Amino acid sequence: MSQHPAAIVESTDIGPGTRIWAFVHILAGARIGADCNICDYVFIESDVVVGDRVVIKSGVQLWDGVTLGNDVFVGPNVTFTNDPFPRSHHHQERVGRTTVKAGASIGANATILPGVTIGERAMVGAATVVTRDVPPDTIVVGNPARISGYVGAKPSVSALPRAVLTAPGAAPTSVRGVTLHRLPHAEDLRGQISFCEAERDIPFPVRRHFVIYGVPGENIRGEHAHRRLHQFLICVAGSVRAVADDGATREEFLLDDPTVGLHLPPMIWGVQYKYSPSAVLLVLASDYYDPTDYIRNYDEFVQLTAGER
Amino acid sequence: MSQHPAAIVESTDIGPGTRIWAFVHILAGARIGADCNICDYVFIESDVVVGDRVVIKSGVQLWDGVTLGNDVFVGPNVTFTNDPFPRSHHHQERVGRTTVKAGASIGANATILPGVTIGERAMVGAATVVTRDVPPDTIVVGNPARISGYVGAKPSVSALPRAVLTAPGAAPTSVRGVTLHRLPHAEDLRGQISFCEAERDIPFPVRRHFVIYGVPGENIRGEHAHRRLHQFLICVAGSVRAVADDGATREEFLLDDPTVGLHLPPMIWGVQYKYSPSAVLLVLASDYYDPTDYIRNYDEFVQLTAGER
Amino acid sequence: MSQHPAAIVESTDIGPGTRIWAFVHILAGARIGADCNICDYVFIESDVVVGDRVVIKSGVQLWDGVTLGNDVFVGPNVTFTNDPFPRSHHHQERVGRTTVKAGASIGANATILPGVTIGERAMVGAATVVTRDVPPDTIVVGNPARISGYVGAKPSVSALPRAVLTAPGAAPTSVRGVTLHRLPHAEDLRGQISFCEAERDIPFPVRRHFVIYGVPGENIRGEHAHRRLHQFLICVAGSVRAVADDGATREEFLLDDPTVGLHLPPMIWGVQYKYSPSAVLLVLASDYYDPTDYIRNYDEFVQLTAGER
Amino acid sequence: MSQHPAAIVESTDIGPGTRIWAFVHILAGARIGADCNICDYVFIESDVVVGDRVVIKSGVQLWDGVTLGNDVFVGPNVTFTNDPFPRSHHHQERVGRTTVKAGASIGANATILPGVTIGERAMVGAATVVTRDVPPDTIVVGNPARISGYVGAKPSVSALPRAVLTAPGAAPTSVRGVTLHRLPHAEDLRGQISFCEAERDIPFPVRRHFVIYGVPGENIRGEHAHRRLHQFLICVAGSVRAVADDGATREEFLLDDPTVGLHLPPMIWGVQYKYSPSAVLLVLASDYYDPTDYIRNYDEFVQLTAGER
Amino acid sequence: MSQHPAAIVESTDIGPGTRIWAFVHILAGARIGADCNICDYVFIESDVVVGDRVVIKSGVQLWDGVTLGNDVFVGPNVTFTNDPFPRSHHHQERVGRTTVKAGASIGANATILPGVTIGERAMVGAATVVTRDVPPDTIVVGNPARISGYVGAKPSVSALPRAVLTAPGAAPTSVRGVTLHRLPHAEDLRGQISFCEAERDIPFPVRRHFVIYGVPGENIRGEHAHRRLHQFLICVAGSVRAVADDGATREEFLLDDPTVGLHLPPMIWGVQYKYSPSAVLLVLASDYYDPTDYIRNYDEFVQLTAGER
Amino acid sequence: MSQHPAAIVESTDIGPGTRIWAFVHILAGARIGADCNICDYVFIESDVVVGDRVVIKSGVQLWDGVTLGNDVFVGPNVTFTNDPFPRSHHHQERVGRTTVKAGASIGANATILPGVTIGERAMVGAATVVTRDVPPDTIVVGNPARISGYVGAKPSVSALPRAVLTAPGAAPTSVRGVTLHRLPHAEDLRGQISFCEAERDIPFPVRRHFVIYGVPGENIRGEHAHRRLHQFLICVAGSVRAVADDGATREEFLLDDPTVGLHLPPMIWGVQYKYSPSAVLLVLASDYYDPTDYIRNYDEFVQLTAGER
Repeated sequence: MSQHPAAIVESTDIGPGTRIWAFVHILAGARIGADCNICDYVFIESDVVVGDRVVIKSGVQLWDGVTLGNDVFVGPNVTFTNDPFPRSHHHQERVGRTTVKAGASIGANATILPGVTIGERAMVGAATVVTRDVPPDTIVVGNPARISGYVGAKPSVSALPRAVLTAPGAAPTSVRGVTLHRLPHAEDLRGQISFCEAERDIPFPVRRHFVIYGVPGENIRGEHAHRRLHQFLICVAGSVRAVADDGATREEFLLDDPTVGLHLPPMIWGVQYKYSPSAVLLVLASDYYDPTDYIRNYDEFVQLTAGER
Repeated sequence: MSQHPAAIVESTDIGPGTRIWAFVHILAGARIGADCNICDYVFIESDVVVGDRVVIKSGVQLWDGVTLGNDVFVGPNVTFTNDPFPRSHHHQERVGRTTVKAGASIGANATILPGVTIGERAMVGAATVVTRDVPPDTIVVGNPARISGYVGAKPSVSALPRAVLTAPGAAPTSVRGVTLHRLPHAEDLRGQISFCEAERDIPFPVRRHFVIYGVPGENIRGEHAHRRLHQFLICVAGSVRAVADDGATREEFLLDDPTVGLHLPPMIWGVQYKYSPSAVLLVLASDYYDPTDYIRNYDEFVQLTAGER
Repeated sequence: MSQHPAAIVESTDIGPGTRIWAFVHILAGARIGADCNICDYVFIESDVVVGDRVVIKSGVQLWDGVTLGNDVFVGPNVTFTNDPFPRSHHHQERVGRTTVKAGASIGANATILPGVTIGERAMVGAATVVTRDVPPDTIVVGNPARISGYVGAKPSVSALPRAVLTAPGAAPTSVRGVTLHRLPHAEDLRGQISFCEAERDIPFPVRRHFVIYGVPGENIRGEHAHRRLHQFLICVAGSVRAVADDGATREEFLLDDPTVGLHLPPMIWGVQYKYSPSAVLLVLASDYYDPTDYIRNYDEFVQLTAGER
Repeated sequence: MSQHPAAIVESTDIGPGTRIWAFVHILAGARIGADCNICDYVFIESDVVVGDRVVIKSGVQLWDGVTLGNDVFVGPNVTFTNDPFPRSHHHQERVGRTTVKAGASIGANATILPGVTIGERAMVGAATVVTRDVPPDTIVVGNPARISGYVGAKPSVSALPRAVLTAPGAAPTSVRGVTLHRLPHAEDLRGQISFCEAERDIPFPVRRHFVIYGVPGENIRGEHAHRRLHQFLICVAGSVRAVADDGATREEFLLDDPTVGLHLPPMIWGVQYKYSPSAVLLVLASDYYDPTDYIRNYDEFVQLTAGER
Repeated sequence: MSQHPAAIVESTDIGPGTRIWAFVHILAGARIGADCNICDYVFIESDVVVGDRVVIKSGVQLWDGVTLGNDVFVGPNVTFTNDPFPRSHHHQERVGRTTVKAGASIGANATILPGVTIGERAMVGAATVVTRDVPPDTIVVGNPARISGYVGAKPSVSALPRAVLTAPGAAPTSVRGVTLHRLPHAEDLRGQISFCEAERDIPFPVRRHFVIYGVPGENIRGEHAHRRLHQFLICVAGSVRAVADDGATREEFLLDDPTVGLHLPPMIWGVQYKYSPSAVLLVLASDYYDPTDYIRNYDEFVQLTAGER
Repeated sequence: MSQHPAAIVESTDIGPGTRIWAFVHILAGARIGADCNICDYVFIESDVVVGDRVVIKSGVQLWDGVTLGNDVFVGPNVTFTNDPFPRSHHHQERVGRTTVKAGASIGANATILPGVTIGERAMVGAATVVTRDVPPDTIVVGNPARISGYVGAKPSVSALPRAVLTAPGAAPTSVRGVTLHRLPHAEDLRGQISFCEAERDIPFPVRRHFVIYGVPGENIRGEHAHRRLHQFLICVAGSVRAVADDGATREEFLLDDPTVGLHLPPMIWGVQYKYSPSAVLLVLASDYYDPTDYIRNYDEFVQLTAGER
């Protein structure tokens, strides 16, 4: 640990290799990991845990209740909070606990409301106001924060340009086992109809379907993988973006055409977001509902798929 | 046959019991059935066939190419045509043939464009301008004509008021074997989801689904029965009216809620119409497509179901 | 009475001075007044009453149940009906009775559905389809018919151009006792406010108010006079047209400004129509509700006001 | 002339070859041309002129003031009028004069309001209500009538598919001397810009421009030819249809792209219609305004161009 | 007073019990009350007044012209300003004075523009940008700040569910003397009408009314009490939220139905806000306008009502 | 230079007259000009250049890559950045360089994303988030920043009130040589037309025109002067604001009427911004495109026009 002479460090729990710059003030009890970089004018209260290799730029305060995972980046003047309804000298029974998971970055001058969790590798844009949990690997911006993209996903493209697959059939994607399908379709003056037959157009028998609608635009649905279940997604009204991830490769699809289906086989992490106001997503599934089939933790998912790569 | 002395009747093919009023003019070759009523100022050309028990009110002309089935009613000043692009003294190679099927009525001062067929028992409203075929049993009004209802259907009601069937389950209707279903449904801040499981919430295995959308409001889809196929209709966006008919009873359902399903078992005549602009109708079917399973003629359907009543 | 030799007149109840043209057919029992003009190809059934000085142009049929008042004009090919749901040879228990009141005119090729009453002096435009009652003195056009104006009313103008009466105060109109008022008004960045004080800005004490809203655009409200009640009309949202009539003069006002009021004193016939979709009309009244204060018959109103002129 | 015995013909001014059918009634003074066909139940007043080769189907009346040119077709139950505000027994000082120009057709059951002129070769659709003048060669439908197309024009197509002429330049059309132009164009994140240089992109110097906007959709603008003036049309907002006619060939262009220009050289008849609500048409012209340069009569135009063919 | 050794305190006017943390810098002349908490990196200029029991979190500067009342909370990195158009080295004649009233809280990283007043007990959300005065007891959020609620008001509910008071009449609320009223109402095909009679449906004679409309959604109207005046609020178009407060209890009502009235008797503090874009609020009042009847200061109002509790 | 004892100044390149306040930290290598004011808690890295007479308020960090011109004002807690996608301990190959040009001001708590340039004399509002370049003399606000006005421009007014110049003609403005024109205009039931003739209504021959459309509302077009070219701007759809500047006087015009033209002669700096969504701007120019005719640097323009003043 190196410490600037103008810094005040009352904690004794600071890891090796961590550099502490001028005018920093760290209270006793705070736990700081190794190889961190704590810039000028950073203030850290007692009930705070900071992981290894964390960068905290100038003008940041870490109040009681804040936990930063390994490899977190906190930009300059980022503002944390721990009281949802602050009043002078009101006794706050328990502080709002804020957690920033490993690898996440928080852009300059962002504001983090109390009690939220920022997921692994998420990227919070500059001046963003985070009012609720940020999912792993998402990019959020705005006031209040909304998801604007996924870290590392290939650029979003129209799912299946009509020119590419004009006849019914399937096309592979960059994600293992995930296929895009052009469904049989008929159109006449009386309107349009798309149809598909289980075990023919869809590569599994259909035992269950569900319909998702009325999703506010800033929300995501999905965000999990299945161990054994096959799913087939068709956006029958409006549009939605679907991210598919096999643990190594991630691709984002714009579903906006009732004649396009996206097949998500087992062991694919799926996320749907950016629902248009009128979006209706039809999901056909290969089996009945089974809560034990869900993998809801992305890190667990990556571990499970590691053997397959 | 009785004939007013001021009528001019050059045809000899007029059925018994038919009354012909003053200032009527019937050309040679016209064939008129029995027990008709031909009112003043009606003019009938040679290449015309009129069934039995037909009423033709005053001011109507039946031009070459018009055929009226039995029990048709033609209101006063109804205007038929047989040339889609009339020009003085242009030679018309063949006339547009207009057919009015048995039991249909045409309201006063309506205009019938050449070449259309008006289906059995249809009701054309007064002053309507008929520019294309009118399906059986429909009521059409306006300029141009649009379907406004179905003859004899119970008044349309919201399919399944939430108060009536608040928990998932099925309720019978007035039509034999047809049931309305409340599907399982969940709602949270992130949006809504309805789901159903084949052979559990839906009373059959699902081998095929199709999605109908982009239907212009004046069109109908469906209008047939199946011999063996079960169907399950869910309107997942917008609204549509579905008529179910077992050959004896007919009921109309307003489908406008993704948590409501309508089960049409085999041997039920089904019609869907009045699609809202954004309507998306999901149909789950019990088997693959089989053209021999369709009954497309309503009269044949009624005969086939007669034994079941 | 004069009768063309090619006419067939079976009725004996035809008034003096009435002329009957070629190819007319009048059944026994029909009652026709004096000085009428019955043009070629007119057919009149038995249960029909026609007043004096009526003109019936060619191609018109008067079916059982039609009554025409004095001085009615019926244009060529106007089509009457008497059965709301006609079917061939179905027995109709009672016909729909149609009444055209004195002085009304029906334009060429109009269609009149069964059971309606067309009010005194009303003007039905050519090719109009009349599906419900037409109020006295209105002009109706379209399919279905809508009110497009009032017979004899001055052209509609914006009620009170701001340039004319910029300060609060009242201005007379062409109708006896009716005044237009500019109300006190304030506006700042926070919005607008108009206000008025009873017995100061409004020339009577206010004991009652009512709010009219949700009026379909084709409807009229009002259409009556009060014997003793004062009313003050303010259109606080959208727009509405108000007609005021003192029995001799009639003026139409466009109310579309919450700072404009229209004072209708007693013995003024008032009609409001052409409500915009969002129109809200606030009416302040000088007394409690009293059904005996209403004059609902325009002819009675004209008689009552005659002495005042 | 041939006349059915049940017809009443009081006029002596009827041309050779004209056939008059049963129950027709023609008053003295009416002038009927040669080779006409007057069907049953047609009534013709005295102050009427009918050209040669005219067909009048059943149920039509021609009132005082109606003039039909040569080769006109009048469908069954078409209704003419001659009084814009008919009242029983009100003295009408002068009748509304209605003129149907040579070659025009009026569809079944149409209604023609008094005082209108229907242009040469125009086609009035069945049940149409004509409330104002119909330009030559137009097709009108609806209540009230609106222009729906042009007789004989090639089907409307998008003016210049981007695929066809991707680089700036000109392409010929089927009309003599008329060219379609792709203008230079640039687009970046800041918006779009199209530009053209006189005597380079536009084949003439520009001395005048005008901007047409706020055109109600049912109206037409243009409808004339120029003797010497070149014009260059660019639709810079919305869309408009432009018809170009060299007297022999006629083509219709959909202008809906600010990078497309249409060059109308001298001696081309031009019509613009079907303006979208937001349409703005920019016209660049080769010279200052000169009223003697206009040819406003289509027949004169055809004569003048005849020599060039 | 306790002072960290790394703080620089040049003022001598600091109250007892106040704690001053590391790296704080207070210039001479600043006046700080008792029992305050001044956290690390706070900078306070000379022309500043801070009340008692004030909390100022890290990273805040109080520039010349800022006054904080007692019990104010200032979150971390909150940024004050005192120059509306700052330019380097331009001489600013007088600073913009900013006042934060007693009990108010300012959330983390909020920005306060110069010259505004933040009312008593108001709550400024995190990252909010305050561009104009914040009324007492309001909650404001966003950029720029808008009112999102009232501190301590009961949750907003639909004013009067139809199920609760289906017949005309009045219902009490939680606020002393304030009643909600269902007004008599009639509805037919021609539209809807609600009406009320003074001294019958409304519990006072009506001498004045005013109409409030065109209120931008972020504004409030009202915000005062009356000593003797009764008011009756009816939202005749759109919706508005009305807060009623008797000094001890506060309730918020959603007015969105022309058949609902809210009676505010004398000595009730009333606020209306969240006007929908089309809202029109009709207010009936028991007397003429009298400026001496208004209580515009909430603290004075609370004092005056204290005796009544 | 004066330096507070609690400041840490490692740079030796600091100009005379510059004052450095408490808790400031300036790294070696930073270059600071003369007469600057560096307030408490300001941190300045090594690769930073600050001009003369710059004010930097408290809580600001200047990271490597930031350059501030002379006379720049940086408000409190303004946050600079230099990494567009920050990750903890990722090696950043080159920093994003941010430049603030002479005379610009940055309001309190604003956030400046890496790599942008803020133009001369621009004014960035408090709490603004600057995501791309800010043009000279503009005022920007919001998240993300949008142009809200121009520094020093006269208040925007409707370009040419109809009352002022009712007949076609020209009116001078406050900017040298710039004139506003009312164009000849005609209006009838068929729509509107405005027209102008080169060298008559427009004071120059027209050799080129261009059409600008599809401009996102936050963008500007123009922003240059011409040496010899005359331009004539007509907004033929929607609205746009045009700023004209002769180097000494600046005026802003709202162009929203196709009958209004704005003549920009040579040596006038022109900017167009605040395009409405449907805006279409027609520009007529006196000559062909010539890149050497453009002056794109405002300072150069001011110098060139200095001699003319």
